[in-house]
Amino acid sequence: MNGAESLVHTLIACGIDTVFANPGTSEMHFVAALDRIPGITCVLCLDETVASGAADAFWRVNRRPAATLLHCGPGLGNALANLHNARRGRSGIVNIVGDQATYHRPLDAPLTADTEGWARSISGFLRTATSAATVGRDAADAVAAACTGTIATLILPADTAWTEGGVIGAPQPVGARPVPAAATIAAVADVLRSGEPAMLLMGGRTLNDATLRAASAIVAGTGAKMLAEVFNARMERGQGRPPIERIPYPIDAAIASLAGIKHLILVEAKTPVGFFAYPGKPGPLAPADCAIHVLAPIDQDGSAAIAALQAELGVAPVEIAVTPKPAPDTGAIAPEAVASSLAALLPADSVIIDEGISFGRGFSRFTHGAAPHTWMQVPGGAIGGGLPMAIGAGVALAGTGRRVVAIQADGSAMYSIAALWTAARRQLDITFVILANRKYAILLHEYAGVGANPGRTAMDMLDLGNPDLDFVKLAEGMGVAGAQAADMKALNALLAASFERTGPFLIELLTI
Amino acid sequence: MNGAESLVHTLIACGIDTVFANPGTSEMHFVAALDRIPGITCVLCLDETVASGAADAFWRVNRRPAATLLHCGPGLGNALANLHNARRGRSGIVNIVGDQATYHRPLDAPLTADTEGWARSISGFLRTATSAATVGRDAADAVAAACTGTIATLILPADTAWTEGGVIGAPQPVGARPVPAAATIAAVADVLRSGEPAMLLMGGRTLNDATLRAASAIVAGTGAKMLAEVFNARMERGQGRPPIERIPYPIDAAIASLAGIKHLILVEAKTPVGFFAYPGKPGPLAPADCAIHVLAPIDQDGSAAIAALQAELGVAPVEIAVTPKPAPDTGAIAPEAVASSLAALLPADSVIIDEGISFGRGFSRFTHGAAPHTWMQVPGGAIGGGLPMAIGAGVALAGTGRRVVAIQADGSAMYSIAALWTAARRQLDITFVILANRKYAILLHEYAGVGANPGRTAMDMLDLGNPDLDFVKLAEGMGVAGAQAADMKALNALLAASFERTGPFLIELLTI
Repeated sequence: MNGAESLVHTLIACGIDTVFANPGTSEMHFVAALDRIPGITCVLCLDETVASGAADAFWRVNRRPAATLLHCGPGLGNALANLHNARRGRSGIVNIVGDQATYHRPLDAPLTADTEGWARSISGFLRTATSAATVGRDAADAVAAACTGTIATLILPADTAWTEGGVIGAPQPVGARPVPAAATIAAVADVLRSGEPAMLLMGGRTLNDATLRAASAIVAGTGAKMLAEVFNARMERGQGRPPIERIPYPIDAAIASLAGIKHLILVEAKTPVGFFAYPGKPGPLAPADCAIHVLAPIDQDGSAAIAALQAELGVAPVEIAVTPKPAPDTGAIAPEAVASSLAALLPADSVIIDEGISFGRGFSRFTHGAAPHTWMQVPGGAIGGGLPMAIGAGVALAGTGRRVVAIQADGSAMYSIAALWTAARRQLDITFVILANRKYAILLHEYAGVGANPGRTAMDMLDLGNPDLDFVKLAEGMGVAGAQAADMKALNALLAASFERTGPFLIELLTI
Repeated sequence: MNGAESLVHTLIACGIDTVFANPGTSEMHFVAALDRIPGITCVLCLDETVASGAADAFWRVNRRPAATLLHCGPGLGNALANLHNARRGRSGIVNIVGDQATYHRPLDAPLTADTEGWARSISGFLRTATSAATVGRDAADAVAAACTGTIATLILPADTAWTEGGVIGAPQPVGARPVPAAATIAAVADVLRSGEPAMLLMGGRTLNDATLRAASAIVAGTGAKMLAEVFNARMERGQGRPPIERIPYPIDAAIASLAGIKHLILVEAKTPVGFFAYPGKPGPLAPADCAIHVLAPIDQDGSAAIAALQAELGVAPVEIAVTPKPAPDTGAIAPEAVASSLAALLPADSVIIDEGISFGRGFSRFTHGAAPHTWMQVPGGAIGGGLPMAIGAGVALAGTGRRVVAIQADGSAMYSIAALWTAARRQLDITFVILANRKYAILLHEYAGVGANPGRTAMDMLDLGNPDLDFVKLAEGMGVAGAQAADMKALNALLAASFERTGPFLIELLTI
């Protein structure tokens, strides 16, 4: 058994069954081991941007890690943006990064790069394997780390893969996340009993039905408010589930959403700050005199904390009003109309991947009446996460009959458009909805904030017209059927038809 | 004048006239300054992979730097692979990387990443601006560094751009590269006079007509051999110019090419090593008993050194045989046939961008008879460099009537396919030739070296069929006209037609 074989056996023993792969020469022995040892589904992605974003969404759906297979430092480099997003969303991923053989690396061959240096800041676990005998143990350590919701990067020098003497690593127990101490619960309960303006800020894994019911009871019983973070890894939403609004993205609205709050209670959430700084505006979103209380830090069990808090406060459950399901909208194309049609037609238990950027920003507000569904955003704000995430969710849901709906802005789609090919190859049940406004609308808005009208040079950098992108052709070029929708009626028909079929379909919605 | 304006004025004063841009929110003040202050052409690229590879090729054509505009850490992350290639090719680039405001960064907003850490290893110059008053000076320092053939990364916190008090930085003198000492020339001359088997290994900027003529004279006069490095940033080639072969890529052929050599003389080249390690094969390519002599290290003027060496040796110029121009090949599709047709039809003074990987690997050998042209490879081996480089070369040559021919493997094309859109927008005179073998052929070859036939799992990761990519549709989706060629006659006709037109054209050549 060589190192690569011990690595594959270890990954399987530790519960890894999916690898999002973009292999290269230095990983051929690992590829050969994956070929010889059954048990892992290998999903080819045409670049590492796709592989990494897919692994992120796989975690979010399954709450267990997939692996990636990346080729040397530059392959890892291509993955960094989506690994950044995964880190911000606290996803668990096992990166296997092939690299130069241990004795070859000092020769500084052309492809040699700073693999460890690039991996460091996005990895909660980082190790470079040193021998075939220990790479199995390294892999077990990596999976155990990933299972806690962090990125584990194992750099695999080629000789640690091809050398004989591999030893299968033993799976390690993964403990449950800690539950906040009773004293913490009691202290927050006291804050809520004070009657001063308070808000629960919900993040992490707390945006599920049971926890939001408990939080809703606390809100109803104490007069506190609640909001979710601006971008969230996963929200369980839809008809009959407790609705929760998010902190708005635009800076002024974000600040206004927290105005008057004296106590902000963080539940697997971070102290909220502006996505960017703006001249003359504060960085922290909460008022200066607002006290910050941590009910559950991001690595603890906020859902258990909220349940305990409800019990401590003795507040009764509340009935969750059922938002009516809207009808498909047949008016002009506008964000609310598109969201309404989506809500009307969405199959139950769908997963929505939301990289809708500006046009899609308000969709969540108008989709509470949709059938129950899961909503995933891009927590790190790195552009290009949406399409790869759709792939990962599609792979995670393959065979379940559940559909993925990727709400995708056009500009950001082009950072990872090669994702479509993997959807075609694996016939993933994904409806891609490209919101084609043919510009970087978010940047035009920000540019307006700078206080000038864009001239020709600025428009050269903010406008996507000249030439227009044709997403239907791009999709067909990668084996995904698609069609353009220029009005709501066409959109409604295409959405409905895509939800009836199997496999991927792309709708280019002209929102200009 | 704010910091951003001082930055733009400084860049212009220092000779920067082109920015390959993919801006984001934190760069809006810089975008506004570019808009207000004329003098810089801003080329929008749909992702940072394209922007960085384009800047690399711009340097190679012009030997002066362009700037990139990248958005925060993740944007830089997307650029790392092609910046790795640029570093290996010793290209000068000025990266302007927007980032969180200095006072906002400690708040760890979602998009905050390890920008400096990711930039460090690819940057010969790295600085984070600290104030509007000093960012102009920072930019002048960055341009001066880039002009020496290194990557200069200036991280631009948003407040250093928007704050008033900018001061234009003074352009700095850029010295010529050092010329090797006379004693070094004399020592190498002694080696060559010894009559022992010797070889000149030519790299860097030495692969030009004058230097190769001098090197050819040395070779003829001393009995030494000469080769170029395996991957080269820029070679001046074609009919009437001195031909030079490269060290082959496959490990066994690479070792064989240096067999028997007792003295290897490096001329802006590195000690040659295998691209990867292989079990049981040496890392260094030269024989164990071969002495390594450095005529000119990579940062010195190897062309001057070769000229001095010719004078020191007193060897006479040699006549360069004129390789006959082949006729367009009309036989079966094969590497030699495609190369012959290319050589037959290529317009004079074209720039060939070579990311032909396996099918295209032998093209250079069969194109010595082409009209004089420039040949550029991917020196760092990071996949996806080709199409972005074609954009940069196309921008550098805009208006000159010179054509770019991008010889592009299909698998690696998909890492940066969004480059096509910029070719369409700017109507760059580029002929893209996609070598569509519908597999990762280089990896199948490497897999065979592992000693096994690929099973279904391995083929899932090495085969690009199911579904086939349709590059003509992909091109049309981005506004680039294209056509498929299934035989040599069609290829010849399409090549000839593309060389007659202006603007981009894509040919998908079915090489399966």
